[in-house]
Amino acid sequence: MLKLYFAPSTCALASHIALADAGADYSTERVDFKTNQQNSPEYLKINAKGRVPALVTDRGILTETPAMLAFIAQSFPKARLAPLEDAYAFAQVQSFNSYLCSTVHPNHAHKMRGARWATEESSFADMKRMIPKTVGASFALIERDMLKGPWVMGDTYTICDPYLFTLAGWLEGDGVDISTLPKVADHRKRMGDRPAVQKALAEEKV
Amino acid sequence: MLKLYFAPSTCALASHIALADAGADYSTERVDFKTNQQNSPEYLKINAKGRVPALVTDRGILTETPAMLAFIAQSFPKARLAPLEDAYAFAQVQSFNSYLCSTVHPNHAHKMRGARWATEESSFADMKRMIPKTVGASFALIERDMLKGPWVMGDTYTICDPYLFTLAGWLEGDGVDISTLPKVADHRKRMGDRPAVQKALAEEKV
Repeated sequence: MLKLYFAPSTCALASHIALADAGADYSTERVDFKTNQQNSPEYLKINAKGRVPALVTDRGILTETPAMLAFIAQSFPKARLAPLEDAYAFAQVQSFNSYLCSTVHPNHAHKMRGARWATEESSFADMKRMIPKTVGASFALIERDMLKGPWVMGDTYTICDPYLFTLAGWLEGDGVDISTLPKVADHRKRMGDRPAVQKALAEEKV
Repeated sequence: MLKLYFAPSTCALASHIALADAGADYSTERVDFKTNQQNSPEYLKINAKGRVPALVTDRGILTETPAMLAFIAQSFPKARLAPLEDAYAFAQVQSFNSYLCSTVHPNHAHKMRGARWATEESSFADMKRMIPKTVGASFALIERDMLKGPWVMGDTYTICDPYLFTLAGWLEGDGVDISTLPKVADHRKRMGDRPAVQKALAEEKV
């Protein structure tokens, strides 16, 4: 049995949806960011980075969304969540997810997590002003070049889709006009219709 | 035949070493950052993100280091660069590489690339002051918890090793005291002794 540590409105949702997509037997445990539980001694034993998500498996604990998504796809091959038999197609999936974790998510993080990279209030304010532009530019590239449609990789749903859906859920809060991103908006709507997405979102609300 | 677009002293070195490790038939093409070639119309057709590395394959072009490293490992299975038959062990490899791309590399990038996330000179100076602390903290975690030794994953060399070696090469420039990181320093030295590393470094100097 797998156990996912998550916090609502974080990138943990991507793995949560993928677990539901996979039909996995899993449980969830909420980490309370309001009380800084992610940096408690107990949670730091789960994930020394003080972040979510973390996935407890019978072999050990995994962290980092792209790694967890590929692990879920490989562990539940019948769910066909990635092109596991085609190294190039799998690399395309991984490239998309790497872009989200290395560029899109850090761009977004400069809104609330500026203290990771600077110390002055004026720097934090400067970073916040840039958010609509930086996150907007990342998503403009996704819209133009990367989201093939209807799913990220084209006709076939993959582990790219819950990850994109998760980060696209932050667009309004980041001041990006979603009407400029019709393919991303359509993708988000189509994702919202999926039972696995509804299940994961409901489990995060409890 | 594979073709790697790279610039010296960038994370492209990780994929370059992995290609050499794999015994792949590859060529390299240098992108001149001094003339901003990475943002030229010609190069943006190779990689619309205006970054290196990019790997031209007979199926298309791949970007993003973790995806390229896994692709190289899967395309050259005889080189045994990743535990391809074990989803959990492969996820551990991918988790390490995701941490480098999502956290360590962005931390480092705040030294010279602050304009990605802010506009004011005072913000750039603030970010630069943090570099020894942020990059140092990332590597302290690697030293303490993640680098099993002698290789990242323990006794077996994997695609984690050239990626760690590449980013560890930036430590002195980032003002991190490498003497506080004996396992990382030992890893870097052992990597430097490998013929594949020497081959890749020599090819980047031409």
